[in-house]
Amino acid sequence: MSSLSLFKDVPFAEKLEGSLLKAYKQDDYPKKLFLAYRVCMTDDGHPWVSLVVQKIRLQIAQDPSLNYEYLPMMGMKSFIQASLELLFGKHSQAIVENRVGGVHTVGDSGAFQLGAQFLRIWRGDAQTVCIISAQKELYGPVFQAIGFTVYEYCIWNPKKLFTDPDIFLEVVEHIPVGCVLVIGNIVDCRLTQSQWIKLMSIIKVANVFDITSCLPNAADEGVGVLVVAALSNRHLLCVLSQLMNYAQALWLNPPATGARIITSILCNHALLVEWKKSLEGIVENIMLIKEKVKEKLRLLGTPGSWDHITEQSGSHGYLGLNYQQVEYLVKKKHIYIPKNSRINFTCINTSNISYITQSIHEAVIFT
Amino acid sequence: MSSLSLFKDVPFAEKLEGSLLKAYKQDDYPKKLFLAYRVCMTDDGHPWVSLVVQKIRLQIAQDPSLNYEYLPMMGMKSFIQASLELLFGKHSQAIVENRVGGVHTVGDSGAFQLGAQFLRIWRGDAQTVCIISAQKELYGPVFQAIGFTVYEYCIWNPKKLFTDPDIFLEVVEHIPVGCVLVIGNIVDCRLTQSQWIKLMSIIKVANVFDITSCLPNAADEGVGVLVVAALSNRHLLCVLSQLMNYAQALWLNPPATGARIITSILCNHALLVEWKKSLEGIVENIMLIKEKVKEKLRLLGTPGSWDHITEQSGSHGYLGLNYQQVEYLVKKKHIYIPKNSRINFTCINTSNISYITQSIHEAVIFT
Repeated sequence: MSSLSLFKDVPFAEKLEGSLLKAYKQDDYPKKLFLAYRVCMTDDGHPWVSLVVQKIRLQIAQDPSLNYEYLPMMGMKSFIQASLELLFGKHSQAIVENRVGGVHTVGDSGAFQLGAQFLRIWRGDAQTVCIISAQKELYGPVFQAIGFTVYEYCIWNPKKLFTDPDIFLEVVEHIPVGCVLVIGNIVDCRLTQSQWIKLMSIIKVANVFDITSCLPNAADEGVGVLVVAALSNRHLLCVLSQLMNYAQALWLNPPATGARIITSILCNHALLVEWKKSLEGIVENIMLIKEKVKEKLRLLGTPGSWDHITEQSGSHGYLGLNYQQVEYLVKKKHIYIPKNSRINFTCINTSNISYITQSIHEAVIFT
Repeated sequence: MSSLSLFKDVPFAEKLEGSLLKAYKQDDYPKKLFLAYRVCMTDDGHPWVSLVVQKIRLQIAQDPSLNYEYLPMMGMKSFIQASLELLFGKHSQAIVENRVGGVHTVGDSGAFQLGAQFLRIWRGDAQTVCIISAQKELYGPVFQAIGFTVYEYCIWNPKKLFTDPDIFLEVVEHIPVGCVLVIGNIVDCRLTQSQWIKLMSIIKVANVFDITSCLPNAADEGVGVLVVAALSNRHLLCVLSQLMNYAQALWLNPPATGARIITSILCNHALLVEWKKSLEGIVENIMLIKEKVKEKLRLLGTPGSWDHITEQSGSHGYLGLNYQQVEYLVKKKHIYIPKNSRINFTCINTSNISYITQSIHEAVIFT
């Protein structure tokens, strides 16, 4: 037998979940559209990169003093520290008590990978993962690949058309003890103070494993951080030492550029101000797109209220369509959006908005 | 029980192999030295970065047309193609028959990780990994982490003081069928034509899994490629589809910068020439350092022949010391070198060469 023939029996991999983009790419319809990109897009359909990021990239390239030694396994210390201070607040108790730490990872997927491996080994009893919400496409495969069963819970209220804190709390309440709870971006889920307290008391009896990538878009440089909040510095160091061993086996040293860019922004007040300023343009643009979509649907006389489009904050939001309507958009109109109808509104621009709104109108009418 | 207290029982991770650098870092002796860095170092002790790489980095930073969309899971197509052509030759049969492909990985460790996962799943019978040679420190943990038993075989002949093709072939001959053979950098192992033929016929009955990172140093950007040579395009696509699913769970999208730099060099003749030119300086420097080390040992009257130092090619080579002598250097002189005495000669420079040669002299005399 030849060494090559050994793998004759390897079948073509089954499509994993997260194949919406694959389906889109395989579609050769000229007017096909993909509305679920992760990053903010410009009006001409390219990923948006802040001028500040471009500026820093240039500074890095011109800096002769920069050290290109491999980073330590743990990653770039200054980047981790800046991320922790961003997340917890510079003077937060957790940081002062030196019981929070992090591992610099390869993208947020890498952070999930590390965390999932850690849970697999140190919470062997945990077999299932519950993801809230709209993150399964991205992070489900990470857990599935190492043997977890993954469930996703949507906290979008299809009748009231908003991200519903009551559904959220009900879901969390009914998650079995010991199951891993992954809470994604819930910025639109406006919990009251008392609901927050209730949430905290509930998750104290479950395993909660929350990684929300909240770092400035480093233009595809694949950078993330897995954050650990422990009871004490001693516990923290134990957990980090384990995570470092997994990181050593996964990628040995994380890439540096993305971390350098983010650290420059977070640690330099002037750049941070500039960065926030550059976000304002994007935010205005997002609000404008949502207004336009809503207005066009109104003019088309599309049944139903569309206020929820403008009521949601951020680049990503629910269109509030049902499965049949989503199916219609994908199959009939070649507009690729997730089953839950959560799209990236910055994928909508002047050249495709009419086709998209007209298609949504048809989807609502004909289904 | 609180969610934090769940991990109270996590112990501090045992030191994995590959801890030479850790030990070095924990040593607070002022004159401590580490002679096992992976990258070429300059005379002033900093990682060497080619001027071409710096130039391209600047071009990338200044290029407004560059697309910062996430790369596909498979990675950057042009980078993979350029790597394949570098490895197999543009007009090689394998490339013409379209049965070789690759996955763009996060560093060479990522390539090992991906390959190890693939073997774990598709060669479940393979339990052991034999690494040749001097790569265990780096890549052993990757295999150990997913349950392989890892052995390392050194093909350095301590009596004849050279990398011995006969030892190499003997090792390969005696590796049990079905065991995974990892052949690292064996550039110094000069096989004859007939020995190559013998090697090929032997490894045809074993699993051979060879990833040698042979790509230009992209200044720590964490870039690698896992190459697959299959019997046919159909088999290739099946294997790649599986690898892509693992990559999706590991890092989703590989970082782009390193791949961009390498692709620019490999695909632009002028830059490639410049790149090779920039290597000449390094090569001359390496030869010079080795000559100096040999000369100083001669002047010190250190027993034994030291011609093997200059007879080996490349930045890394064996000092040809035994374990006691290595132990002496590490423990008594704080000079950190691997047990097999294979060092990175570019870590030796004008400011430390005297201390190093004097220490080697003592190690040989006193042990």
